[in-house]
Amino acid sequence: MRVVSWMVHRQGEPMVRTEREEAAEAGEVVIRVAGCGVCHTDLGFFYEGVPTKHGFPLCLGHEISGRVVQAGAGAESWMGRDVVVPAVIPCGSCDACRAGHGSVCPSQIFPGNDVHGGFGSHVKVPARGLCAVPDLTDARLNPSGVDLASLSVVADAVSTPYQAIARSGLAASDLAVFVGAGGVGGFGVQIAAAVGARVVAIDVDPARLDAISRHGAELTLRADVLDAKELKAAVRELAKKHAVPTWRQKIFETSGTAAGQATAFSLLGHGGYLGVVGFTSERVEIRLSNLMAFDAKAEGNWGCLPELYPKALDLVLSGQVRVAPFIEKRPLDSINDTFGALRARRLTARPVLVPEG
Amino acid sequence: MRVVSWMVHRQGEPMVRTEREEAAEAGEVVIRVAGCGVCHTDLGFFYEGVPTKHGFPLCLGHEISGRVVQAGAGAESWMGRDVVVPAVIPCGSCDACRAGHGSVCPSQIFPGNDVHGGFGSHVKVPARGLCAVPDLTDARLNPSGVDLASLSVVADAVSTPYQAIARSGLAASDLAVFVGAGGVGGFGVQIAAAVGARVVAIDVDPARLDAISRHGAELTLRADVLDAKELKAAVRELAKKHAVPTWRQKIFETSGTAAGQATAFSLLGHGGYLGVVGFTSERVEIRLSNLMAFDAKAEGNWGCLPELYPKALDLVLSGQVRVAPFIEKRPLDSINDTFGALRARRLTARPVLVPEG
Repeated sequence: MRVVSWMVHRQGEPMVRTEREEAAEAGEVVIRVAGCGVCHTDLGFFYEGVPTKHGFPLCLGHEISGRVVQAGAGAESWMGRDVVVPAVIPCGSCDACRAGHGSVCPSQIFPGNDVHGGFGSHVKVPARGLCAVPDLTDARLNPSGVDLASLSVVADAVSTPYQAIARSGLAASDLAVFVGAGGVGGFGVQIAAAVGARVVAIDVDPARLDAISRHGAELTLRADVLDAKELKAAVRELAKKHAVPTWRQKIFETSGTAAGQATAFSLLGHGGYLGVVGFTSERVEIRLSNLMAFDAKAEGNWGCLPELYPKALDLVLSGQVRVAPFIEKRPLDSINDTFGALRARRLTARPVLVPEG
Repeated sequence: MRVVSWMVHRQGEPMVRTEREEAAEAGEVVIRVAGCGVCHTDLGFFYEGVPTKHGFPLCLGHEISGRVVQAGAGAESWMGRDVVVPAVIPCGSCDACRAGHGSVCPSQIFPGNDVHGGFGSHVKVPARGLCAVPDLTDARLNPSGVDLASLSVVADAVSTPYQAIARSGLAASDLAVFVGAGGVGGFGVQIAAAVGARVVAIDVDPARLDAISRHGAELTLRADVLDAKELKAAVRELAKKHAVPTWRQKIFETSGTAAGQATAFSLLGHGGYLGVVGFTSERVEIRLSNLMAFDAKAEGNWGCLPELYPKALDLVLSGQVRVAPFIEKRPLDSINDTFGALRARRLTARPVLVPEG
């Protein structure tokens, strides 16, 4: 079938609307894109020279929702279904996958990196790992009334902190601290609140903090106003107030900055946990031995295993995690403007690009 | 009863042989010390101003084996038994302990830090958590023929890497890399080999590497000769030879140096694991985001939970972990000389101080 993709030809040069033929082969599906979120990872590929696995020309975009409109052999059961496409699709059958290490599957498919992604009318992906979306017109299945395009952010911005939080073992009445309350961190705050944790959000942007204070953050702290000691004191004070010991305090670095990493690391106490969710290529100077002295742990998180997506999706459908206030739908043909605006920090919400028609 | 302790009065000033009265209260035992290992932690307290929880005068020493010669109420069943005293004795009943976080129990007892330690004729400790030593004269129970004084190193130098290795999930045919092949790292190599892993030891001391190459290290690498890239290439080559993927490579930092930590961190690959076992107060500059990009984990390790000691002890009794080649028994009254010699790196083996008589 004839599909449209916005192709990157050279780093930083305007993406070009391109038509091409696409056909689902065995085990694959072609999805008509409902929405595709723009992630900072895309900016890294496009502006900063972070190399993509598949060379240019390449269509970016890994935060995809849509409807299956063509199915290859063995994938017929997906035909006509609404789906969220995991940002990282492990092969499911190699040694790493079978040992539960699907996140590091060497044959994983990352749309918009390994193959053409979701900034287009359609995308072709393996059917394995697709997350089925129920009938969104049924209010019992979709009490929040979210639409399919908005569910695109479940593919990464919601599911990635979901996995990081699940790995941390965060439980009700624990304390969760998010250093960085942007896309990933903001949804992280909501997920942690849904778990029943008390949540602190730290950011340099007062507007972000204001928004997230209405969606689960009990305490918001400005990293541009308070220094590391003051941030730590404020977190400790809240923990003391609610009698949460350090080993029930889970810190999540979701800013993807060296400053944020230093802050997050400094918040670790005895038996503490640090989830490294954001990415920066910068280095940071830390006293790594604190992990030993505190019997603490720092764990990175790459994507989210497909088997966790249904639970992450349920949080959104049920309204426990609100998507609408944190995204802005924009037409796909605004892609070059949208990338520029996101890079220039002119957007407060996460842009979701919606194909025309 | 009358006991002898070597007391620290001031940082770095010779310890003084001192007699005092000691009596086991409820839940406590007095142990006649068979041997007490000297650890780098003791040097930190004595020379480097690392603060002890109990102020000076204090008797150091937390690596203790001996026989129970007095038992308080409720601890009578321990009377006359040979034991290893865990270096970290959690209270066993607080929220942290009940949640499996005994290593960060706020009421933990660390002999030679919270209370008088093992550099004396006797030591008084809580009975909880003691590790019973079987009849060492019975060759079936003690095929290695180890003596009680030598078992003192099970209290820390053997049990600490034991827990770190257990936490890492190291399995047969995995690759274990120890950065630092001194006391803790050397026993770590042997424990990892006993698990069935392939083991690499990295150190700056060729004598240590030579010794450990005869006790489980398949490959030894000199950190003073090879740079970070060469070390990494050599580890990768061995992993490739044995087809061990990065997610089955467990790195253990056992040097307690910033250089060692930088090396250890650089060895992490996709799905990798770094156990931070050694301690240094130095900071290190690393790209923390590698944990995210590699979906990897760095975990600190403080001591060893008492419930793991029997398994660590079994490895020594069975001869799978050899103690004799790596320790040197010295008379307790050589304590000041021994500390000086260890600090000056004149000792290749771990000193175990044995009380006279």
